[in-house]
Amino acid sequence: MIITLTTDFGLRDSFVGTMKGVILGIAPAVQIVDLTHGIAAGDVRGGAFALMTATPFFPPGTIHVAVIDPGVGSARKAVAIRTGRAIFIGPDNGVLSWAVKEADPLEIRSVENSDVFLPQVSNTFHGRDLFAPTAAWLAAKREFCELGPELAHFQRTDWPNPIRVQEGWKTEVIHVDTYGDAITAFPAVRTNGVQSVLLPGGKRIPFEGFYAAVPRGNPLAVIGSSGFVEIAINQGDAARELSLRTGSEVIIV
Amino acid sequence: MIITLTTDFGLRDSFVGTMKGVILGIAPAVQIVDLTHGIAAGDVRGGAFALMTATPFFPPGTIHVAVIDPGVGSARKAVAIRTGRAIFIGPDNGVLSWAVKEADPLEIRSVENSDVFLPQVSNTFHGRDLFAPTAAWLAAKREFCELGPELAHFQRTDWPNPIRVQEGWKTEVIHVDTYGDAITAFPAVRTNGVQSVLLPGGKRIPFEGFYAAVPRGNPLAVIGSSGFVEIAINQGDAARELSLRTGSEVIIV
Amino acid sequence: MIITLTTDFGLRDSFVGTMKGVILGIAPAVQIVDLTHGIAAGDVRGGAFALMTATPFFPPGTIHVAVIDPGVGSARKAVAIRTGRAIFIGPDNGVLSWAVKEADPLEIRSVENSDVFLPQVSNTFHGRDLFAPTAAWLAAKREFCELGPELAHFQRTDWPNPIRVQEGWKTEVIHVDTYGDAITAFPAVRTNGVQSVLLPGGKRIPFEGFYAAVPRGNPLAVIGSSGFVEIAINQGDAARELSLRTGSEVIIV
Repeated sequence: MIITLTTDFGLRDSFVGTMKGVILGIAPAVQIVDLTHGIAAGDVRGGAFALMTATPFFPPGTIHVAVIDPGVGSARKAVAIRTGRAIFIGPDNGVLSWAVKEADPLEIRSVENSDVFLPQVSNTFHGRDLFAPTAAWLAAKREFCELGPELAHFQRTDWPNPIRVQEGWKTEVIHVDTYGDAITAFPAVRTNGVQSVLLPGGKRIPFEGFYAAVPRGNPLAVIGSSGFVEIAINQGDAARELSLRTGSEVIIV
Repeated sequence: MIITLTTDFGLRDSFVGTMKGVILGIAPAVQIVDLTHGIAAGDVRGGAFALMTATPFFPPGTIHVAVIDPGVGSARKAVAIRTGRAIFIGPDNGVLSWAVKEADPLEIRSVENSDVFLPQVSNTFHGRDLFAPTAAWLAAKREFCELGPELAHFQRTDWPNPIRVQEGWKTEVIHVDTYGDAITAFPAVRTNGVQSVLLPGGKRIPFEGFYAAVPRGNPLAVIGSSGFVEIAINQGDAARELSLRTGSEVIIV
Repeated sequence: MIITLTTDFGLRDSFVGTMKGVILGIAPAVQIVDLTHGIAAGDVRGGAFALMTATPFFPPGTIHVAVIDPGVGSARKAVAIRTGRAIFIGPDNGVLSWAVKEADPLEIRSVENSDVFLPQVSNTFHGRDLFAPTAAWLAAKREFCELGPELAHFQRTDWPNPIRVQEGWKTEVIHVDTYGDAITAFPAVRTNGVQSVLLPGGKRIPFEGFYAAVPRGNPLAVIGSSGFVEIAINQGDAARELSLRTGSEVIIV
């Protein structure tokens, strides 16, 4: 049984290690995998993107925990979603909504059963006190339906669909990765016939098959590993050099 | 069996990975958990704080290794401490002293038995050559008493106890976490009746139940997840915006 | 069975977590250890150094995967090397060549068998689509010889051997670690009689047994944990304070 963790806790403090202690105390045989703890503080869309791109590569039955939770301690629900392939647990603020497609949920529960939580639930660290024990409790083979009342829906974060414009399709940058590659919301499956991308300032860059198809230092568009068109510079930092950030609009031509 | 690792090695080099190789070579079935490797170089109090807050959440029998060791290669002792709940291993420089309370130790040993160490012990990397094999050796069910001679004491780092002043209790910031929350030495159990906190410049901030109890961007004091009063800004960086750092004095009112 | 991962992916994105999902889907019982994901983007020598220093400390049979791969998607080969002690997998760009000594390889294979890979191999993320499944496939006890055609050689990165000069031996900095220690290519086994090191500007620093042999803030040369002479400052950052970087030349006297 695998539990994955995605948070904005960073790795400087012992927050993530503490969650693992809680999990292993309840479910000693579980394998814990860090998806990433480098989501920007409170960046729900960043967490949603990380989950969307990574979770399909895990074996069936994996339990994915996401704690990007700027509303911790307030009235937002904690939610658990069971799909045909995995379980997703997190705050009900949209962070799970790109990994869990519209038709995926078999069962959605509001996580409210305090038998599952640590005896004392703080107002500031639900990752440790609520989400980690919930995941471990499920990994230790308890019933999903015991978590709390069933919900009809969970909160979704809108996906920015490409829009038809005169020159082609307008889309936006949804994530800048650690290399400075700017990943757009334009899916690989729609790139048939695509030849170039227009950047915000009007610069046109070629659509190529791989990074090294252009000379070192040159910009290109390419189908990235997450299945979307991305703007890159061969061995360079496209976001910095081309002034791209999350939300920048580009046109796929 | 779980071994946790807390170091100031960072994650850019392969130091931590190397320690894990050593451990798994001796105790193949052990589960290794990183508490954090992001302690500032040589920051013994930072390591002590990480251990104090995280280790209570691990199951009984866990072995905790801390390597914040600015005196590596000099005459400082290596120490192992057995409590009713866990084993703590590290340099005898105070790094273990906030996790191991005054009354906790059942047995303290100076780690000197070279049968336990790697065949060659360097003067610069005791994490790999001495501490990792010691932990793995214990995880592989060897006797604690074989580590070396018993000690009556180990080195303690003073905890800054709050001091009574006219307006309330003067305390200090003992840790700034990755979000910029400034954690004070004032314990949650003494907050009955607390209403506000006076910051160094005289600014007064309210004591609230959770971060989102104040508007985004506003400062507050709150009981943090480690069980102490902390100074925070809702979705902001209190340390930076309020010029707080480790050692800054505030008054709990 | 252990699989180690060394990449330049960083920990901000979910790249590393995704590789682990792929591995655990194929080889559920494997233990995955991160050597480091903090290699600078495309820094093949940095990756080669991390592998060289860490891999000897892992138990026999470990599978080491290195993905520092600026040529991903181009014509560079993927290579797997079996030695008497371990298996090394990575792009054939020299990253494996300091860990695998001249006489080590028992068998070298070009990794080409697409049965081993994920069904869809992207042009941008061979760590996930090719290297992770190859390692997992071997961990799940498949035959090394099935990976692809045997090769006579794999690509080597030159080691900068020390050169005899009038004052002593000229060597260069091959790695700056997270503390700012500047590690030279001069091996510990040749330090018999060494007394000092001449830095680029002519400054002479003493050769000592351990960091704390000089007062805090003072520079020294010392045998580092990786088995080479390194330039350090006791509790300071030698690279920054002495203006040393990878490639800086110093003279061992």
